[in-house]
Amino acid sequence: MHKVIFDTDPGVDDAMALLFLERHPDIDLIGITTAFGNASIETTTRNALYLKQQWNIAAPVAKGSAEQFEPSRHTHPFPAHIHGDDGLGNIGVPDIVDVPLDPRPAHQFIIDTVKAHPGEITLVAVGRMTNLANALKAAPEIAGLVKEVIIMGGAVDVPGNINPAAEANIHGDPEAADYIMIAPWKVVVVGLDVTLKTTMSRTELAELSGKGGAPMKLLDRLSQFYIDFYDGEVKDSMVVHDTCACVYLVARELFTTRGGPVRVLTTGIGEGKTIQKPDGHRFGPSVWDNAPSQLVCTDIEADAVMTLVKETLVRQ
Amino acid sequence: MHKVIFDTDPGVDDAMALLFLERHPDIDLIGITTAFGNASIETTTRNALYLKQQWNIAAPVAKGSAEQFEPSRHTHPFPAHIHGDDGLGNIGVPDIVDVPLDPRPAHQFIIDTVKAHPGEITLVAVGRMTNLANALKAAPEIAGLVKEVIIMGGAVDVPGNINPAAEANIHGDPEAADYIMIAPWKVVVVGLDVTLKTTMSRTELAELSGKGGAPMKLLDRLSQFYIDFYDGEVKDSMVVHDTCACVYLVARELFTTRGGPVRVLTTGIGEGKTIQKPDGHRFGPSVWDNAPSQLVCTDIEADAVMTLVKETLVRQ
Repeated sequence: MHKVIFDTDPGVDDAMALLFLERHPDIDLIGITTAFGNASIETTTRNALYLKQQWNIAAPVAKGSAEQFEPSRHTHPFPAHIHGDDGLGNIGVPDIVDVPLDPRPAHQFIIDTVKAHPGEITLVAVGRMTNLANALKAAPEIAGLVKEVIIMGGAVDVPGNINPAAEANIHGDPEAADYIMIAPWKVVVVGLDVTLKTTMSRTELAELSGKGGAPMKLLDRLSQFYIDFYDGEVKDSMVVHDTCACVYLVARELFTTRGGPVRVLTTGIGEGKTIQKPDGHRFGPSVWDNAPSQLVCTDIEADAVMTLVKETLVRQ
Repeated sequence: MHKVIFDTDPGVDDAMALLFLERHPDIDLIGITTAFGNASIETTTRNALYLKQQWNIAAPVAKGSAEQFEPSRHTHPFPAHIHGDDGLGNIGVPDIVDVPLDPRPAHQFIIDTVKAHPGEITLVAVGRMTNLANALKAAPEIAGLVKEVIIMGGAVDVPGNINPAAEANIHGDPEAADYIMIAPWKVVVVGLDVTLKTTMSRTELAELSGKGGAPMKLLDRLSQFYIDFYDGEVKDSMVVHDTCACVYLVARELFTTRGGPVRVLTTGIGEGKTIQKPDGHRFGPSVWDNAPSQLVCTDIEADAVMTLVKETLVRQ
């Protein structure tokens, strides 16, 4: 069993990833921590509680930081045109969800849980890396206690999505992302290099909706607005970003990876760009030299990944 | 006939490119302008004059700037370990070469020559972009009078060579490179994405040396030190960076290109990184938006390119 803390900013594709984690038989979801990004921290936290309630998820929800890792950093508007004003495709999520929050802030929840299960926890982070960086800063010793960090974020050999340089999760808090990349733990970068190859169509979602019970019906419904957004790029379909990071956890053989230190640009027009120094390449001296080698996913067996996603989403 | 001004910092692979330009029957080399980079401006200019003398090249040599486009920019040491202390593989180039320089600085030579042949001149630039940027700044109207700008420089979808972010020609003067990328002329970026796929072995050079007369014998001799440097990456061979830009001029069908504005990062750890906004992709607003679409070479038919290079280098 993979013990997982899911750091997330639901967010439509976050919701699919959450249902995948909840329904996969080899995954033990032991906590949900919220980040801002796809919407404000109030909204993403409310959404996490709503999905916990609707999907009867046992894992507690801990609320993340409302500020970037460096609070002075300028902020960006939330992408309501992608995830809806409510962050879940404008399905009309109630303002207040009567489910208790974990009393701890997200970073403290991460620290406590990692320490309670040394060497066993995988952090799957699919929003900005703020909570992970805050946890690491407050308790650097957790780096040696976490089993693995799998993130959806970054664009290494391909253009970004916020702008030609940067992917949204990294762009939203580049200092946090750089901080987690250079920490002495194992990070796997599941970025646009591979996630853009995975799509789910309206038709496929509708089929799953007929087989996966009420949770899958809700996922189908909340995904429609997001599919409208992606329609210009992938006909009548959505890109399955966040779930890819969850699939890596249980089926890493479906991914091609490349080792090497990763740094994140934090200044100028390239802010948020992720750059890897591939292991074994020769370069002059640089700031990559003393950072640990991390894994960047460079390719994906998209059909096999989507088959696994569809099988998992309808398990009951 | 392609009328060419060759902006170069010889430099070993520059020397091969120069011999290619001189010997290709469809190329009319009408000027050589020197840049610093592979060695100091004094050394690269001396080397250009030396090659002009040894190879009996008619085109005049004009000396380029000794300073970067923004003179306050910090400088980097010259790569004597790659091109030799003399910039030509330590073959013992005489300190003084008795060949006259064109009296004009390189940027003025470019301006005058472009204006004398409106719409006819291709600038092939294989060093730092300093002279091109200086010419453009002093006479912005030349942008509309140049036929095309073909550069060896940049690393778009692949790591750099100076460091994981940046290729040497761009890293050496990023402000100049950014300036020429956003100018209203047509730039073709022949960078590491393609040049790293082209190699010439010692054995091949020796064969050409037997067939190409004294000029080819000199090229073989001056290339040995450079091959020693590259030996760790490509066994007993050199990478043919600069000549690729010259091949593009006469055989563009051997290259795959992608259109889109290109910007160069000028700050932080990504300084010198070239990032393209591919045409047709959707992004949020960014500084790429109002820059002209340029062509980036993303693939190359390396075998066919090297066949053409070898055929051309032995033409007499």
